[in-house]
Amino acid sequence: MRELTVDLGERSYPIYIGEGLLDSAAGYFTKHGISKKSTLMIVSDSHVAPLYLETLEQHLRGEGFRVTSAVVDAGESSKSLAVLEQLVAKALEAGLDRKSAVVALGGGVVGDLAGFLAASYMRGVQFIQIPTTILAHDSSVGGKVAVNHPLAKNIIGAFHQPEMVLYDLNTLQTLPIREVRAGLAEVVKHGLIWDESFVEWCVTNAGKLQALDADALGYALYKGCSVKAAVVSEDERENGLRAILNLGHTIGHALEAVAGYGELLHGEAISIGMIGSAKLGLRYGAPQSVYDVTKQSLQSCGLPTRLPAHLDTDAIMDAMSHDKKFKESKMVFVVPVAIGKVEIKSDVPVEWVREIVEELKQEA
Amino acid sequence: MRELTVDLGERSYPIYIGEGLLDSAAGYFTKHGISKKSTLMIVSDSHVAPLYLETLEQHLRGEGFRVTSAVVDAGESSKSLAVLEQLVAKALEAGLDRKSAVVALGGGVVGDLAGFLAASYMRGVQFIQIPTTILAHDSSVGGKVAVNHPLAKNIIGAFHQPEMVLYDLNTLQTLPIREVRAGLAEVVKHGLIWDESFVEWCVTNAGKLQALDADALGYALYKGCSVKAAVVSEDERENGLRAILNLGHTIGHALEAVAGYGELLHGEAISIGMIGSAKLGLRYGAPQSVYDVTKQSLQSCGLPTRLPAHLDTDAIMDAMSHDKKFKESKMVFVVPVAIGKVEIKSDVPVEWVREIVEELKQEA
Ligand SMILES: NC(=O)c1ccc[n+]([C@@H]2O[C@H](COP(=O)([O-])OP(=O)(O)OC[C@H]3O[C@@H](n4cnc5c(N)ncnc54)[C@H](O)[C@@H]3O)[C@@H](O)[C@H]2O)c1
Ligand SMILES: NC(=O)c1ccc[n+]([C@@H]2O[C@H](COP(=O)([O-])OP(=O)(O)OC[C@H]3O[C@@H](n4cnc5c(N)ncnc54)[C@H](O)[C@@H]3O)[C@@H](O)[C@H]2O)c1
Ligand SMILES: [Zn+2]
Ligand SMILES: [Zn+2]
Repeated sequence: MRELTVDLGERSYPIYIGEGLLDSAAGYFTKHGISKKSTLMIVSDSHVAPLYLETLEQHLRGEGFRVTSAVVDAGESSKSLAVLEQLVAKALEAGLDRKSAVVALGGGVVGDLAGFLAASYMRGVQFIQIPTTILAHDSSVGGKVAVNHPLAKNIIGAFHQPEMVLYDLNTLQTLPIREVRAGLAEVVKHGLIWDESFVEWCVTNAGKLQALDADALGYALYKGCSVKAAVVSEDERENGLRAILNLGHTIGHALEAVAGYGELLHGEAISIGMIGSAKLGLRYGAPQSVYDVTKQSLQSCGLPTRLPAHLDTDAIMDAMSHDKKFKESKMVFVVPVAIGKVEIKSDVPVEWVREIVEELKQEA
Repeated sequence: MRELTVDLGERSYPIYIGEGLLDSAAGYFTKHGISKKSTLMIVSDSHVAPLYLETLEQHLRGEGFRVTSAVVDAGESSKSLAVLEQLVAKALEAGLDRKSAVVALGGGVVGDLAGFLAASYMRGVQFIQIPTTILAHDSSVGGKVAVNHPLAKNIIGAFHQPEMVLYDLNTLQTLPIREVRAGLAEVVKHGLIWDESFVEWCVTNAGKLQALDADALGYALYKGCSVKAAVVSEDERENGLRAILNLGHTIGHALEAVAGYGELLHGEAISIGMIGSAKLGLRYGAPQSVYDVTKQSLQSCGLPTRLPAHLDTDAIMDAMSHDKKFKESKMVFVVPVAIGKVEIKSDVPVEWVREIVEELKQEA
């Protein structure tokens, strides 16, 4: 069992990573002040609920918690105000009050949605993250919660820190391999922005990680969460440092938007985006090895590095111009200067970006 | 011109109360760090916009601010997630970014709706309150913002403090008299919970207030806001003291729900509710004069004190049982023990409440 703390003063909270936490959640709940008097609501999705919801519900009820559950359709489309409204109805019918907690059991979609429910229901109730994807090591830490608007992703949300994050490694065993790899993209990202030796470790252990070796996964998630926690502790509300977490995301978000959400998973899109950032790094004078190691680390995890040629360059550039990181004819990018070290460049010429998008289509 | 501060550490903000502030808003915006580089969005409603929106827009544009506006239908039904979604679309189309501000120009409906937009758009942007009703002296101070759910009022929201409150007394001149009186109910409430001499002042000046005398209004709003600010400063997130602001609201909310929103204005409903609370006070041993002065102060402002006889007592009791203030067979009430002093009673027998509801139907 591994444990770390997200250090945010009075909003600090622990992350527990281990096997079998679904069966021992109650002890952590009690330790961290979750009330048995008020009903708590578990939010899960249609893939995760059949696998793990009953286990968690029965365990919690057996320990004297009052539990109600809501299951949403799996997939990004559940992160909407319409689904939020349905969840609020459920919460009201089940009698959730200001002392209740909302528990997210699922990946980043469920975490973001349930988190915004917790942030806004009665102007804020307690929130617990039980992530079941690798990607969610990123989304479950840091308190960013949101739903989508038809015109923009994650545009309606809040900063609402959880009381704790409970990572049960056993739940990861049922993840489709594509989701495993997509999640590893954020793990590698955390190495690339912060910790060279962790990147080396990822390359060495890429096979074990994809084989869902519990020990390797536990360590990778511990390290990934540690980097995220360190960054968030310094900059809870994204006024500065936190921007480095966006490595690969400017191009990545544009690819997701243009491909239509679904063709590329988020992790796949930012994998390609991180190759783009590494290319930008070269233009800013980073050594070739930065590009080489970036590519090696992503490829070793089975992630794509080439931009699908059928995606239109103009459309990609256009999608980026809607991104918040765009300013006049210069763009803002997170750029690697070494492995484990990035800088924010706010003067990136749009032309460079266009050239790199083209190059990414030729990438091996 | 009167000025006071809501003291909340780094979230402190000023309230300015005076005539002609719509024409001088820009100076306050600049003083309090509202950016001219990002577009700001004014939210107003279909009654207020034709009267005051153009004045404010033109003034701000003339001073170099970038301004876009959104007008929602007047009335409680605009406090919904559906309208929020429309406002987010407008905000995106107008290019609002993280440095933008949302400005509420209107009564409590617009303030609560625009405030929740500001709290959730891009996880929170700056917010400015320009209240145009008397009631909004209450709603614009304290940072409680929310929209309604079909099943419950104000259930989806946030605590999001404004950067400032700008009260232009001139805008109150167009208020329908019924809205004037309803607003005075919250003014009187602030006296009843906190300040005996202010209650006396309200009785003496009730005529001037209903005649919209600017001097009297300015003083009343200053005092009302001061009480609200003092309470909120002690208890920003409603963990304790802030509950005293609910004087008259347990019964009041039930009456609004049962009458159907519209038959009774919020201020009218809580006026009747405050009479009910005073009756409870008598049962707890408060002197008769507490009841008498409560009644006199509300009646002098032209407010109702009798519960409409056609409202079903069972339905009212039922509505209260859905209220958050209900616990098993005991109810929680704010009860006056003297003029200017209330206590929270958490052991009020349901039977007493039922009797008082019946008595209120006989009230003179
Ligand atoms: N809040 C943040 O800071 C943050 C950071 C990164 C990403 N995100 C958000 O996270 C979301 C993506 O997260 P995700 O990749 O976890 O997506 P997801 O929640 O959609 O999960 C991916 C898929 O795996 C399924 N699944 C989840 N756990 C499973 C398990 N244990 N076994 C089998 N199937 C399982 C899901 O049902 C889904 O089909 C996006 O909406 C993104 O915006 C948020
Ligand atoms: N956030 C809080 O702390 C808090 C506190 C109390 C009430 N509230 C909320 O406030 C709302 C009630 O506020 P309200 O009474 O101001 O209602 P409102 O905003 O609906 O205004 C009342 C009516 O007056 C009109 N109006 C407003 N200003 C006018 C003007 N200057 N001239 C002419 N007409 C004008 C409006 O269009 C509306 O028809 C409710 O939704 C309630 O839940 C919130
Ligand atoms: Zn990401
Ligand atoms: Zn009120």
